[in-house]
Amino acid sequence: MAFEAQTRALAAQLGPEVVRTDGAARFAASLDNARLSFLPDAVLLPRDEDDVAAILKAANMEKVPVTIRGGGTATTGSASPVLGGWALDLSGWKNLHIDAETGIAYVQPGVVTATLAAEAEKLGWFYPPDPSSSKYSTIGGNIACNAGGMRGARYGVTRDYVMALEGFLPTGEWVRWGGDLRKWAAGYNMRDLWVGSEGTLGVVTGAVLRLIAKPAARATFLCAFADEFKALEASRAIFAARLPASIMEFMDRASVACTAAEGLVLPLKLEGATPAVLLVELDGDAEKVEAATKSFEELVSGRTVALRRASSPAEAELLWEVRRRCSKAMFRLADGKLNEDIVIPPRAQEELLAFTQDLHARYGLATPVFGHAGDGNFHVHVMYRAGDSGDRAKAEKAVTEIMEKVVALGGAISGEHGIGLAKQPFLSLQLSPAEIAAMQAVKKALDPNGILNPGKIFGAFRIWEHEKTSVKLPWD
Amino acid sequence: MAFEAQTRALAAQLGPEVVRTDGAARFAASLDNARLSFLPDAVLLPRDEDDVAAILKAANMEKVPVTIRGGGTATTGSASPVLGGWALDLSGWKNLHIDAETGIAYVQPGVVTATLAAEAEKLGWFYPPDPSSSKYSTIGGNIACNAGGMRGARYGVTRDYVMALEGFLPTGEWVRWGGDLRKWAAGYNMRDLWVGSEGTLGVVTGAVLRLIAKPAARATFLCAFADEFKALEASRAIFAARLPASIMEFMDRASVACTAAEGLVLPLKLEGATPAVLLVELDGDAEKVEAATKSFEELVSGRTVALRRASSPAEAELLWEVRRRCSKAMFRLADGKLNEDIVIPPRAQEELLAFTQDLHARYGLATPVFGHAGDGNFHVHVMYRAGDSGDRAKAEKAVTEIMEKVVALGGAISGEHGIGLAKQPFLSLQLSPAEIAAMQAVKKALDPNGILNPGKIFGAFRIWEHEKTSVKLPWD
Repeated sequence: MAFEAQTRALAAQLGPEVVRTDGAARFAASLDNARLSFLPDAVLLPRDEDDVAAILKAANMEKVPVTIRGGGTATTGSASPVLGGWALDLSGWKNLHIDAETGIAYVQPGVVTATLAAEAEKLGWFYPPDPSSSKYSTIGGNIACNAGGMRGARYGVTRDYVMALEGFLPTGEWVRWGGDLRKWAAGYNMRDLWVGSEGTLGVVTGAVLRLIAKPAARATFLCAFADEFKALEASRAIFAARLPASIMEFMDRASVACTAAEGLVLPLKLEGATPAVLLVELDGDAEKVEAATKSFEELVSGRTVALRRASSPAEAELLWEVRRRCSKAMFRLADGKLNEDIVIPPRAQEELLAFTQDLHARYGLATPVFGHAGDGNFHVHVMYRAGDSGDRAKAEKAVTEIMEKVVALGGAISGEHGIGLAKQPFLSLQLSPAEIAAMQAVKKALDPNGILNPGKIFGAFRIWEHEKTSVKLPWD
Repeated sequence: MAFEAQTRALAAQLGPEVVRTDGAARFAASLDNARLSFLPDAVLLPRDEDDVAAILKAANMEKVPVTIRGGGTATTGSASPVLGGWALDLSGWKNLHIDAETGIAYVQPGVVTATLAAEAEKLGWFYPPDPSSSKYSTIGGNIACNAGGMRGARYGVTRDYVMALEGFLPTGEWVRWGGDLRKWAAGYNMRDLWVGSEGTLGVVTGAVLRLIAKPAARATFLCAFADEFKALEASRAIFAARLPASIMEFMDRASVACTAAEGLVLPLKLEGATPAVLLVELDGDAEKVEAATKSFEELVSGRTVALRRASSPAEAELLWEVRRRCSKAMFRLADGKLNEDIVIPPRAQEELLAFTQDLHARYGLATPVFGHAGDGNFHVHVMYRAGDSGDRAKAEKAVTEIMEKVVALGGAISGEHGIGLAKQPFLSLQLSPAEIAAMQAVKKALDPNGILNPGKIFGAFRIWEHEKTSVKLPWD
């Protein structure tokens, strides 16, 4: 309890319902899906904006770290209060209003992503970002890491749907960036600077989001290929043909084999070897989807070993379930996993995959790959025996090699998870000293006391020196 | 020549071909389309990035203002070197490469917007932002003010197409924000902070832009209404019906009458009064456009006094020409014009229009309005006799009232032009002291010597105290 006196003073000011110090609340707020536990001194449940302003004022006066949290689904430790202090929990801020005429959503940060998507759909609108955590993640967290999902290539990421943000500067002043406006050019674009800043530059207490017209029809395809290279080459051909592919998910043979071993067998009659797979969704008006289906089938049928159109929404859902279960199924290969959501330019897909296969051969560790072929955002893994120190050392080296390769290919070390604690060792591969210095100058300018989510993004955290906490989270 | 010695030293270092000091070059670089002339000490024509780095190094050492310019089409004076110093002219940096497979454009800042659009179209791709200056404006300038155009509602603005920017920090270090990547989440989003920052936060020397698939079909409609309110109400109904309207341009009766007086008569058989007009373009696949046309005609025909579908691309082009000529035709009403590209939420359209009509009645000055009904970005004018000081004073008051109303309606004082010099008196209506202070803190953090485009956005420039320079520009 590094900030015990300050916490007592805040509790006296705001009351025990706002300032929680019981062990269960503190433990729950000590980690996110990266399972790196650092206890906060208190969990704060502000009732309104006045509470948030009072909290930030006290934090600045006493230099208490404030770490914002929503659903706690981040995979990078960005919601872990690594320096203690106060966990500012906004998951209870759940107001949601959708203007059915204009397709504009007014959202508090605690609204769950899937709830927004479902409410939009009821009114004939569509909110495309769909991180795989969407049943648990909140819009506030999605904004913090600029969450993506499967539909990135065609529909972009969270940032593409944020019209305005309101909330507080780190120093405690209320601000609003943008409006329920489709464009504006008046002063700097602080809105997009906040998006993806992992809760280090401001506290979002409200967002205005743009919805789009819901596609009338969708068609889902399972395409099996003899190997990964044929699958990736097909994905580029689909894009180059301007087919309306809203989803293009890739699974390598190892990923397919792991899910099959879990009992999730793809509905294909194949003899012999396990295929690499693309799961493709076309969307749009009914006529457009039918026309595109024809072009699509012509384009890929010469390249596949098997091709199947999902005959029903239920079958399509089974395919997505196979894809979603990939991540867990990998543990069949080993009990330790390093998972990096790198992103690369389309031209470099095959080269990256060849590199991971070579890595597999050189290190003797499995390197399964799946992810979003549509936007170059692949989830690259290194599997290792967690209890074997030689394996751990090899895995760290292999991941570092992957990150170096990704940057050399013109890619980015994270596509949609962010840096948080987990990826700090790699940030200097991605960004030059001048680029990092510019970002830190912006941080210092907006948060001179360094109270908002300190220790994140730009620190020297080495994830492999920290043990993961064994805990059952809601999505486990 | 406030920076004569520094200019001589730079000329000695880089040579007279890079450092131009002749009167003609300096005058040409002294203004943009706002025609507020401030002579620079020199015009710099860097040959390469080394020259840019050397220029910024010298400027920081000697505190010389550096004002970047491209095509000089800005309407706000943002390219006027208001404090003298050096005009950094990047209009000659014209390299352009489009990857036909991925639909990604690699562009230098001097590429003209219409050139990019035409080259994209040749390869079956589409670059949607189309400021009315597109035949003269450059991509660098479009990025500086986050240029929009007629297609904003459906296709967004320049920012929505910028994947990466590279160039120099104000302090002279080379940086790159983003890549040819459809997403990334690694460090702060400095890319979107640069977009729209009017050349005050960095020098863009290269951009990576995203193209989209070119719509296969377009249909253009001229819809005439008895008055402005019927037209605006129809525009909201079109949007609410999710019709694929890529353009929805509004012209009030005064605008239509002025263009008609110029000989640009709309192809309608109307008896009696001049109508208010919507020009609507639907786009998409051929089948989709035909289906949407049917719904569209059903939706609007009960509201119009006349409705006509352009029978050919040539007729459609005539309609756009009427719209583009609006701005000049206004001078039939008076020789002085204040033109504000405000933007308001869809719900507030009618209220704003009623307000401008009331203003007309109260001040006795014409207040014609046209613009982008699709995204709420209206060009609101106050016409006055420039030689009449009473008229000028009334016009200033009327414009201030408009800006106050816009902000009260939840709008923005600029949709796509930016602040530059011209809109500085209104920035404090739009933004709170805390918001302005945060922006200025970011500026100070990135440009501690204040050399990049000083005197812009946040200053106290009062446009009505400055006479416009009479000059013939290429687009006149």
